[in-house]
Amino acid sequence: MRKFIIDTIFRVRLRHRPGQLAKFTALIADEEGLVGEITTIRISEHDTIRDITIQTTDDAHTERIVAAIRAADYVDLLYTQDRVFERHRGGKIHSTSRVEVTHVGDLRHIYTPGVARVSLAIQDKPELAWEFTGISNSVGIFTNGTRVLGLGDIGPLASLPVMEGKAVLYDRLAGISATPILIDTKDPDQFIETVIRIAPSFGAIHLEDIRTPDCFRIERELDARLAKPVMHDDQWGTGTAALAGVINACKMTGIELRRARVGQIGLGAAGSAIARLALAYGVEEVLVTDRSPEVTAQLAPPGTRAADIATLMRNCDIVIATTGRPGLIAPEQVRPGQVIFGLSNPEPEIDPDVARAAGAAFAGDGRSINNALAFPGLFKGALEVRSRSITVEMLLVAAEVIASLAEDTEVVPSPLNPAVHDAVRVAVAAKARELGLAGTARA
Amino acid sequence: MRKFIIDTIFRVRLRHRPGQLAKFTALIADEEGLVGEITTIRISEHDTIRDITIQTTDDAHTERIVAAIRAADYVDLLYTQDRVFERHRGGKIHSTSRVEVTHVGDLRHIYTPGVARVSLAIQDKPELAWEFTGISNSVGIFTNGTRVLGLGDIGPLASLPVMEGKAVLYDRLAGISATPILIDTKDPDQFIETVIRIAPSFGAIHLEDIRTPDCFRIERELDARLAKPVMHDDQWGTGTAALAGVINACKMTGIELRRARVGQIGLGAAGSAIARLALAYGVEEVLVTDRSPEVTAQLAPPGTRAADIATLMRNCDIVIATTGRPGLIAPEQVRPGQVIFGLSNPEPEIDPDVARAAGAAFAGDGRSINNALAFPGLFKGALEVRSRSITVEMLLVAAEVIASLAEDTEVVPSPLNPAVHDAVRVAVAAKARELGLAGTARA
Repeated sequence: MRKFIIDTIFRVRLRHRPGQLAKFTALIADEEGLVGEITTIRISEHDTIRDITIQTTDDAHTERIVAAIRAADYVDLLYTQDRVFERHRGGKIHSTSRVEVTHVGDLRHIYTPGVARVSLAIQDKPELAWEFTGISNSVGIFTNGTRVLGLGDIGPLASLPVMEGKAVLYDRLAGISATPILIDTKDPDQFIETVIRIAPSFGAIHLEDIRTPDCFRIERELDARLAKPVMHDDQWGTGTAALAGVINACKMTGIELRRARVGQIGLGAAGSAIARLALAYGVEEVLVTDRSPEVTAQLAPPGTRAADIATLMRNCDIVIATTGRPGLIAPEQVRPGQVIFGLSNPEPEIDPDVARAAGAAFAGDGRSINNALAFPGLFKGALEVRSRSITVEMLLVAAEVIASLAEDTEVVPSPLNPAVHDAVRVAVAAKARELGLAGTARA
Repeated sequence: MRKFIIDTIFRVRLRHRPGQLAKFTALIADEEGLVGEITTIRISEHDTIRDITIQTTDDAHTERIVAAIRAADYVDLLYTQDRVFERHRGGKIHSTSRVEVTHVGDLRHIYTPGVARVSLAIQDKPELAWEFTGISNSVGIFTNGTRVLGLGDIGPLASLPVMEGKAVLYDRLAGISATPILIDTKDPDQFIETVIRIAPSFGAIHLEDIRTPDCFRIERELDARLAKPVMHDDQWGTGTAALAGVINACKMTGIELRRARVGQIGLGAAGSAIARLALAYGVEEVLVTDRSPEVTAQLAPPGTRAADIATLMRNCDIVIATTGRPGLIAPEQVRPGQVIFGLSNPEPEIDPDVARAAGAAFAGDGRSINNALAFPGLFKGALEVRSRSITVEMLLVAAEVIASLAEDTEVVPSPLNPAVHDAVRVAVAAKARELGLAGTARA
């Protein structure tokens, strides 16, 4: 399937009479562009100026559409604007004051001399920092940019737009104050040391887009050494969202998940977390595979069974693939009645339509599982009760809550539904309390 | 002079008839409290409920006032609330989204898949990060909490309210996005290394509340190794604001500053910066002194002359003291016609009234110089033109601009006057351009 990944705003002047927009949209259709939002900027006696967003597959495609519009005599192209870049201009987050500073009295309260009393109180009782600083609701998003989206090692600076995007989601979906911290090192020990040193700045530590196997050790050590929630989102956020999707796909297809055989293809950050979570959920048998028998043996989580891909496809009721290898799964490998998630972006391991045609009872791709479903509520719940960590039990309740909130036709709910994040928060906080983790975080 | 540093809100119920508030305020006056804001919460037929802010000198003083109110028969004390602590509750800053996330299309733009194109563009051309991430307008506020206000080494966590206060001022006074980063180490090399590693996260580096002499080396090395503005505010922010005050005090008293003898007592962060800036401004002779002849010899900035305090007081037209030692300057040391700034907080080296009585032509204390005058505009101007550093020349124009905006009766303008920060921004940016520094920052 072709991906329309570029959104361009075309500001055009059309004559103000019936049929012009119809001609224009037909022209775009001829050039195989997708028309998105249409807004009217100005209407005069003779002309209408409109912003028309057109999605294309690549820059050359956009150029062809520009040329076609220029060649048409009933429309003037005033200018084009790349919508994605425009929305990134100036950055996507801002550290904003929560207090007014209008009078000298305000300065006395929020800065010297008043602030000295708050500082002394925290020096005396560090736990007061949860009440009188932002750490009770703050997350640091740490990355070294070594494994960003499907782009690989693009370095810390180039990963900043992704981290800002995560911070936007934290704010908009859970009201959490999140700050991207780019760490300019590929050395996992230096990474760990840096996070430990600046950890007092934040209430919780979100790890993002760190290459394997470094991400595993970094998370393990930080979780052990810091008495505050630490979570590598590419593992557990994705794993939780995927488990929610699997739970619902099983419901839809009448498979009893705990009695089923689950197959995980690809043992990177997401894949290994999905396999672990499936086991923790109570799935009796989890088969796993990766590039070679040697790599599989090395990466297979405890309790899973190493297999080759053919065996896995033949034996499993549910298959999840997170390999980054488009088309890895051949249609003839699909077992009738199977649930298949080819989660790699932008191209799945098997196109859902192809999988269904080959007999799959359910097929989804990366668009069907959005990891933004999990991390906002997970961290919000953990922060709310001051849990020193986010445990597998908390991830499992989050997955169940997410699954339960999907509409009939959805495999997972929309991440833009605020009820989802609130429900995850409540469930995670309750589970932390039940586990005796409430109040165990240290500032 | 007694300092009224505690603001408490008393919520009281008074009878709704004339004279009640007069009786109440007289009661507070008898107990030597200062009445601040009075707001009416609710008026019923018989009663009025009001929040009355009362300033006291310490907790025992507040307790005495509570007892006095409880003993009065015409007023009910409903509860008290510490105004400073209330305003710190939940922290003073929040990392806020600058973009809407309402539709799935928004997600496509600000997160995957759209964000990948922005990341790739930055990987290809790192300078695009100034356009499409927040670094063009962001400052990291770094501290290890070893020298916080007048409190000394209270550690990183307890310093967070102060750093949040700085971030509030950045946002409110200059629209800059500032983020406190607490570094949990006292080792200057580890501090430097940590800042270098996470420096890509921010457009500029603000150093704060780091003990001497570590602060000097930390600033010097970071400035040399990072191609973005680095400034230790306790040195240069305070130094710039102090120079502005000295410029105006000289105008008020008819002293020609460049021809005058300036004496700097105390060679900590602020003091050494003031001495350096005075020299850079063109003052012909700068005398300096510190605890002992040995310490003075060691800390005296190049171009200044070491002296003992008696010699300095006897010979200088302008004296600035930043020692943290209340009452250090005896009235009999004051030379008639002298300009004296005893800047230590909360108690100055000499009370301005005492200094004036002893013959000083001008006397000021810490309240007359607010370092919030300098840093917001300095960083805003430097970021605006993407200067790789903040130079002494930029500090000097900032001091001159700040001085020029004071009203007739002020020695410096109010930091809450937005025109000040805007004028500093413009002057600093112009100076950076003139120095050929515009566009020299690297992301």
